[in-house]
Amino acid sequence: MTADSPEARLAELNIELPAVRTPAGTFVHAVRAGSLLFVGGHLPWRADGTLVQGKLGAELDVEAGHEAAQLAALSALATIRAELGSLDKVLRIAKLNGVVNSTPGFMQHTQVINGASDPFVAVFGYRGQHARLAVGVSSLPFNLALEIELVAEIAAE
Amino acid sequence: MTADSPEARLAELNIELPAVRTPAGTFVHAVRAGSLLFVGGHLPWRADGTLVQGKLGAELDVEAGHEAAQLAALSALATIRAELGSLDKVLRIAKLNGVVNSTPGFMQHTQVINGASDPFVAVFGYRGQHARLAVGVSSLPFNLALEIELVAEIAAE
Amino acid sequence: MTADSPEARLAELNIELPAVRTPAGTFVHAVRAGSLLFVGGHLPWRADGTLVQGKLGAELDVEAGHEAAQLAALSALATIRAELGSLDKVLRIAKLNGVVNSTPGFMQHTQVINGASDPFVAVFGYRGQHARLAVGVSSLPFNLALEIELVAEIAAE
Repeated sequence: MTADSPEARLAELNIELPAVRTPAGTFVHAVRAGSLLFVGGHLPWRADGTLVQGKLGAELDVEAGHEAAQLAALSALATIRAELGSLDKVLRIAKLNGVVNSTPGFMQHTQVINGASDPFVAVFGYRGQHARLAVGVSSLPFNLALEIELVAEIAAE
Repeated sequence: MTADSPEARLAELNIELPAVRTPAGTFVHAVRAGSLLFVGGHLPWRADGTLVQGKLGAELDVEAGHEAAQLAALSALATIRAELGSLDKVLRIAKLNGVVNSTPGFMQHTQVINGASDPFVAVFGYRGQHARLAVGVSSLPFNLALEIELVAEIAAE
Repeated sequence: MTADSPEARLAELNIELPAVRTPAGTFVHAVRAGSLLFVGGHLPWRADGTLVQGKLGAELDVEAGHEAAQLAALSALATIRAELGSLDKVLRIAKLNGVVNSTPGFMQHTQVINGASDPFVAVFGYRGQHARLAVGVSSLPFNLALEIELVAEIAAE
């Protein structure tokens, strides 16, 4: 673990990753395929074990959505560490998708999903900079506020 | 074809794959890129050549959606076999996405898309376990009930 | 640059690619991971620097959507060239996703997103044929008409 290791940066930032939750359906949180790690949909779990639920543009405002996106990012980071043993094995966060449960008139998906993107840049530096798609969807499982998913490039074993 | 081959398992399960349909637009069903097979959106074709259409939460209930997801999975399996010559060439189903045509209040995407995930586990065993994202969308082409897409890791030629 | 080079074909077709825009959020336009290029959500920029905004099925008809999809494709092509130095480095457009801002009753996503697919085939020939998913979403950032994203396989350096 060198001075610029993501694990070291996480510790400096005093970020504690949440526990990895049991998947809610017949799937797994992440799958490694060659040099890629496919990380499935991750949920905005609060530290108290509740989920951020509701629609952006209705019950939730942009600030609440931004916070939910941060929580989903921490949840995804926890999965990556659990899969690889250490965040230091990540070469690059390649692609991140954010799906925002929102009303038809909502337009601020970018600000909301920045809440998910920023922690990756904070922890991985330029290796955390990713291509992205942020969209508004009409409904999500459990009325979740949002979900994020990503593809990471990882170091050979 | 060994005892644990996906093709053998498919035969044991008495699952017959449907014919591969002509794409409805200017695209192809799947593309191989190195060790990955990108399988595009697949539709819930019934055996009689009709499509499952309508919105979850309105005309369709969870059971109907679950069945539509199974049909879309069989359609995707047919494409994989057609692309690779045999399902036995699949090393892993890495990622599956399910998009569910649903009303703004719908929340049971997980149960619906389990109908797509389960056949992959039944046929490929642990190699069929995948990362996943299931979302609700406000509309789909032809008013389809849902679509699924996936990425598989495949054996070198 | 050989006779069948994508760059040559682009010139023959008199297509001029737009300038690459600054990303609107904390992300980048594309990331290379091994032999894959992940190209994030691209927007329908008009030549005059305005965006195509509005919902399909409401303010926009299929023709306007088709044109918006073409514009988003040109925007993505500009990013690919900027990333790789030349479109000739693309081995294959593997996967394209189109998300269409649309009303719940909209059903013609296929025709709309053909507007994004066709330029890739025109420029890359069979190497431009891709797997695809086209969906309708209830809202997009800035009330955009649509976005496209893609994964390309690229030549080794």
